[in-house]
Parts: sequence; C-alpha cells; structure tokens
Amino acid sequence: MNILDIIEKKKVAKELSSEEINYFIEAYTKNEITDYQAAALVMAICINGMTQDEILALTIAMAKSGDVLDLSDISNNIVDKHSTGGVGDKITLIVMPIIAALGIPVAKMSGRGLGITGGTADKLESIPGYNINISIDEFKENIKDIGISLISQTLNLAPADKKIYALRDTIACTNSTPLIASSIMSKKIAAGANAIVLDVTCGSGAFMPNKEQAKKLASLMSKIGVWANRKTVCVITNMDEPLGFAVGNTLEVAEAVNALKGKMPDDVKEVVVELAAQMMYLSGKYPKLSENRAKVMEVIESGKAFEKFKELVARQGGDVSFIEDPSKFEKAPIITPVIAEEDGVVEKLDAGMVGKAGLGLGMGRQNKDDEIDPRVGMIFNKKIGDDVKKGDVLAYVHANTPESANNCVEEIKKAYVIGYRRISKKNIIEII
Amino acid sequence: MNILDIIEKKKVAKELSSEEINYFIEAYTKNEITDYQAAALVMAICINGMTQDEILALTIAMAKSGDVLDLSDISNNIVDKHSTGGVGDKITLIVMPIIAALGIPVAKMSGRGLGITGGTADKLESIPGYNINISIDEFKENIKDIGISLISQTLNLAPADKKIYALRDTIACTNSTPLIASSIMSKKIAAGANAIVLDVTCGSGAFMPNKEQAKKLASLMSKIGVWANRKTVCVITNMDEPLGFAVGNTLEVAEAVNALKGKMPDDVKEVVVELAAQMMYLSGKYPKLSENRAKVMEVIESGKAFEKFKELVARQGGDVSFIEDPSKFEKAPIITPVIAEEDGVVEKLDAGMVGKAGLGLGMGRQNKDDEIDPRVGMIFNKKIGDDVKKGDVLAYVHANTPESANNCVEEIKKAYVIGYRRISKKNIIEII
Repeated sequence: MNILDIIEKKKVAKELSSEEINYFIEAYTKNEITDYQAAALVMAICINGMTQDEILALTIAMAKSGDVLDLSDISNNIVDKHSTGGVGDKITLIVMPIIAALGIPVAKMSGRGLGITGGTADKLESIPGYNINISIDEFKENIKDIGISLISQTLNLAPADKKIYALRDTIACTNSTPLIASSIMSKKIAAGANAIVLDVTCGSGAFMPNKEQAKKLASLMSKIGVWANRKTVCVITNMDEPLGFAVGNTLEVAEAVNALKGKMPDDVKEVVVELAAQMMYLSGKYPKLSENRAKVMEVIESGKAFEKFKELVARQGGDVSFIEDPSKFEKAPIITPVIAEEDGVVEKLDAGMVGKAGLGLGMGRQNKDDEIDPRVGMIFNKKIGDDVKKGDVLAYVHANTPESANNCVEEIKKAYVIGYRRISKKNIIEII
Repeated sequence: MNILDIIEKKKVAKELSSEEINYFIEAYTKNEITDYQAAALVMAICINGMTQDEILALTIAMAKSGDVLDLSDISNNIVDKHSTGGVGDKITLIVMPIIAALGIPVAKMSGRGLGITGGTADKLESIPGYNINISIDEFKENIKDIGISLISQTLNLAPADKKIYALRDTIACTNSTPLIASSIMSKKIAAGANAIVLDVTCGSGAFMPNKEQAKKLASLMSKIGVWANRKTVCVITNMDEPLGFAVGNTLEVAEAVNALKGKMPDDVKEVVVELAAQMMYLSGKYPKLSENRAKVMEVIESGKAFEKFKELVARQGGDVSFIEDPSKFEKAPIITPVIAEEDGVVEKLDAGMVGKAGLGLGMGRQNKDDEIDPRVGMIFNKKIGDDVKKGDVLAYVHANTPESANNCVEEIKKAYVIGYRRISKKNIIEII
C-alpha cells in the first residue's frame, strides 16, 4: 500500500477502503508517514468529505491505534458520557454520582480544559487531595467496590486521534464534521464504552456555533454509534450563555455540590435530568424514559446522589470536608461586582465572551501546558430573561490581580446585552 | 497575515489576494511556514483550483523568490524556449544554434533529466570538455561575442517553485494545471525571458498524457504570458513515440549534429522548423511566420547553423572534433539488435515504455542524485507507420552490461505494437 495512491484517491473524491484507512492510521501513528502527507490527506478529506464506510473505518482505526480499555470484568454494558465542551459545564460532576447511586457502574476518564472549554479533570483536581491519576487497576477496583471512579486520561487512548487533532489545528481543518465525529467516537470506544450519551453543546460558547451544525454532528455521531455497535444518544444543548451561575474550577465544584444537594439552577437541572435519564435508559436497567426523569430527582432528594459523590471523593483521596462545606475552598483574593448600567431585560450573556474573559483571569489554558488558578472565575446573578435594574449586580468576578479583575469586568459588561425583549430559552434543543 | 486564514480561505474555495499569495511564497521560501501547512494549502489549490489573478500572482511571486536574471544589457527581447519534456527530445540542441545563426541572441539555461525525461544539460555535458557551469558573467560574455550560450541552471532561480515542486511530488499534487503552468512560467520569467516558445509535449512519454490536458496547460501558460507581459506561444507536439531515431545522451548529440548538417528525421524536422519559426517571429526580427519556415531550412543548408553549434561548443571548452565526427563518441560496450518477430506495420512505439527501458540502461535518473551513463540508449530503425518483416532489426540497444541489454530488448519488444493499420501521425498537434 502506498500513501501517494491514497492521497490521490481522496483528492479526486473517490472512496478509500478500510485497508487504506487502516494503513494510513497505523503508519502515521508510527511516524512512517510525514506530517505533510497527512496534512494533504486531511485537507482532501475536509474538502471532499467521507462516506459512511470511511467514517466508520477511520473511527475504529483511531480507536485501536493505542490502548483500548477492557471493562468487561466490570460490566458488559458500560455507559459513558461525553460533552463537546462549554462554559460552566459541570454536568459530569453532577450526573455521574446520580448514575452510580442508581446502581449503574460509572467508569469515566475526563480531559483537562483547553481554550474557553473547561475540563472535568481540572475541576476534580481542585478538590484538595483528590487523585485523578490513579492506576487502571485502582480505577477498576473503585468501580467494583463503590460503583464509580472519575479519573484523568492516563492511558494512551487513541494516539492517532491526538496526532491528527493537533495537525488539524495547524492547517485550518478543525471544523470538518466527519473528522470531529470520528475523533470523539474513537476516544469513547477506546475508553471501553458500550453505550454513549453525548452532550452536543451548541452556541457561542461551544465548538458548534449553531443548531444546524450541531444537528449534523449529532446525527453523524449517532450513526457511527449504530455502525460501530455502540448505542449512542445525542442531546443537543444550548451553550449561548454559560451553564448555571458559576464559571471557574472550585466555583463550579461548589455549584455541583449544591446541585447534588437539590439546589440546581434551572438550566443545569434540565440538562442533568435529560442526560441522566438517557444514560439510565441505555444501561438497560431503566427501560422507561418517562419514569427515569422522576427517578433522577428522587435519587437527589433522597441524598443518595450526594452520598455517592462524597464516597467517590473519599475513595480517591479527596478531603470530603470541602464537599460537605464548599465555603472551605480557598477564595480568590479579589471579588469585584459587575454593575448594571441600565434597566431592562437580559437579552444575551455571550458564553464565548465569558469563556474568553475567564481565560484572562487564569481560569483555563490558552496552550496545553499553561498553569491554571482553580480559585478564579465568575458567579452570574443575572442570566438571559432576567429583569435588571440600573445598579444591580449582574455578576461577581473572582480574580487574582486587580488588573485581571478590571479587564474581566469590562469584558463581562460587553458579554451582556440588556434590552427589552424577553427571549425564550430552550436548554435541551433536540435529542438525536 | 496568518497562514491559517489563507489555508481556510482556499479550503472553502475563496480567492486569495496577491498579498496573501506573496506572503505564503516569501514565508515558505524562508522556512517560516511548515511543510504540512504548505501541503494543506497546495492540496486545497489542487482540488479547488485558482483564478486568473491568483495564478498570475503565484507565478510572479515564485519568479521573484530567488535570483532574477537581468539580460537587458544583451537585448530587451530575449526569446526563450522550453519543453515540458519527452523521450528523445534533442530539439534544444538543434533549434538554438539555428536561432543564433539567424542573429537572435540565445541565452538558455537548461535542466538535467529526471525520470524518463532527458535533460539538455546532460546531453551537452556528454560532449568532452563542454562546461555547462560557467559563471553568469561568462554566460553573458559568450552571448555578446558569439550570440549564444547554453548552460546549466547555476543560479538560484525560483527557489519557491523548487520547494513547492518537490512537495507536490510527495503529496500526489503533481497534476494540477495551475500549479504546472505557474511553475514553468515562473522559471522562464526568472531566467530573464521576454518572449517564450513552449513545446508542450503530449502522449505516453510526456507529462500530459492526452491532447485535452496538453491544450488546457498550453492555454493557461499562454494566458499567464499575456497577464505577465511575456509574449508566449505554445506548440503542442506529439510524444506518443520517441522523437527522432536516437534516445540516449551521446546518441542524441550525434543525431542533433546530423540534423544541423541537414539530415533530420521527419518528426524532428517538423518540430524544429515550427519552434524555430515561432521563436523568430517572437524576436520581432522575422515578422512573417510563413517565410520563417523556409529561412530555418536555409540556415541549415547553408551550414551556418552547424557552424554556430561548433562555435558554441568550442567557446564553452568542448572538443569540436566530436561534433565534426560524432563517431568519435565512446560507444557503449554492448550493442544488441531488437528483432521483429512478425510481419506488419508499426502501429505503436510507446514513448513512455521506451523511456522506462532507458532508465534501466542507466540513461536517466530515477532519483536526483543518480549517476548516468552518457553512452547508453537506443537507435530505432522502425517507427510508427513503417513496414516491418519478420527478422528485421527494429532497434539497437546500447548497453553497459549484458543483463541490462537483455532486459531492455524485452521491454522495447513490448513497446512495439506490430499490426496491420497504418496510423496517420501528426507531430505538431496545435499551436496556441
């Protein structure tokens, strides 16, 4: 097999065989194909697209390019959850203990944040003592013992995807739906999932800027699920404004704790209930979706979900007293209000702008190796649809320097549009 | 300016500005843009094409990426000639002395051969003593004194084109008409040409396999000529069978010498006369194309063209006795006939297969740094349309080992198709 023939074929929009795709992925992972040849092929894929067979072959080849986690000794129906990322997205921290409390094993590896998108690994790590880097044996042991473990991506999962993802970033090929879909699905398959609930975020703070593109991506991932024999449900959720009131690592952990205690912002609740109900359904143990939503609220109200979260934190070495009393988390040295300058209704709170403002605070990473400050972030008092009077506190900025606080206040002001229209909000846009 | 924006633009088939193209060419020449980014852009160009403005901007940017030869002290109307390459193509050796003998200055830099395509520089170098690497000052001095100099490409002409050409070769992007056209034209412009006659070869032994593609390339190069203010004429010539009887370096020099003495195979004569007549026309000194063809034959028959060639060889240090008596050239140790196995008419003598057979003899280079043997090659007795009787000698193979001789004989047999149809040949296909 010859990479030149493969590139030529895709250049003239012909279909590649699985053998050709496997050859490319294997050889590129082993550095036997140069970056410029891979770049040419990826560009041809971006422009000419891929067929169903090609997308499936690419997904499976990337999934098999490194370690593949075998969780069959725990369950033959591991349900995983993935979000395409957003601002203030602490859903994993809330949903996973709920699921575990309902008797469904939770074996989840989470990534760190990059750009405006936060990462569950960073949030967990902000809990003093919590070890996100335990071994795979301990990971499995924890799941067997307490039904849940949340760790960082310690294995060499889908290294081909990592290489291609990094390459796409440098050649303006990030926004190809087949490549995004196969990238996400390959990682989930490598992580041992049998069934997957995907939270496809959509809006200014998400990778998919509008409903049409989010639906396209969701349909394609659902199809890959069918082709690859992984039951997959995509829930398209709104990411035009940040999710919940808190944005920032420890601030979001505190919000998640409150949620597990029953105090959830409406948008968070809607997403949590829907994702959890879908995961329950895919587990096979709760076949009536309509009943599942009520069961989610029951397991929260009974305190079982919160107990499960504490059990998880304790088991992974975390200091549970921070979970019992989140006010123990160290606060950022500067907390400054953002004051409304006019009366009206919040028409917009741009999640993308909030995410960028958070980067300026040190909340996330511009580059992979940047340090983050777990304390910084924002608490929003006013969200889309809320009435505002001049002088009201729209939000509080938690910062570590006066300069970054002032910059952030200015940026948050710009992220708000105060007008007169009461926009109707929909947090769950569609289920595919 | 940002390379990512430029790649993205071409990916979605938008037109690049001249500033963007200049930026890319300058930065890539200075290695400030990576090969994988260039590969992605080149692939997007291959798939989505280029507009007139883009092609012109690319040609000029590549022409200016290195040295630009200024020949204005010799003439303000330097007429250059270029062939897109073929098997047995010794036209430059014949046409250029003719042009010089007609009083038109000849300042020509020629390349070495690569693949099945021979190079004029190699042929000249097979004349004992001939120095193809003289300095630019000597080059100009020779033209001023005797009206002609033929040398190798010693200057750093169009280095961006060299880089992009090498890259295209590794990413299956060689056959893009805009990229081929701008590559050829950029080199000619950098070499100081004011007017250009392009021999666009077409057929199994050429880069353009059929008339349609050759016409497309020729039209585009003529257009670039107009846009870049270089009078350009393209002569599309047949390269389905080798040109003339001789293929190989010293064998072709001998055939060129005989041609300059008036003994030319019909196909060589047709191409020589047409190209020379067009060059005369573009020089401005011979404005009647219809008369030029006769003048070409006159300057040969008078012996002036041959005298000019001897003058050139002597001036550049070559041993003129080899030109006066080409039988002095050292012969290959093995000369083996290829015998006809049946009666009939030659329907085909595949130039591409002949070229590949020649590579096996050591006539050309598979890779840039391969050594060549100037003695080896073939002499064809029978060409398309000729009658053949069983036992006739179709060709002689000149080889340096018995093995390579035998292999070549077998391959030449396959290159011949002996049938019953007398195919009509046309050596000049079209003038654009």
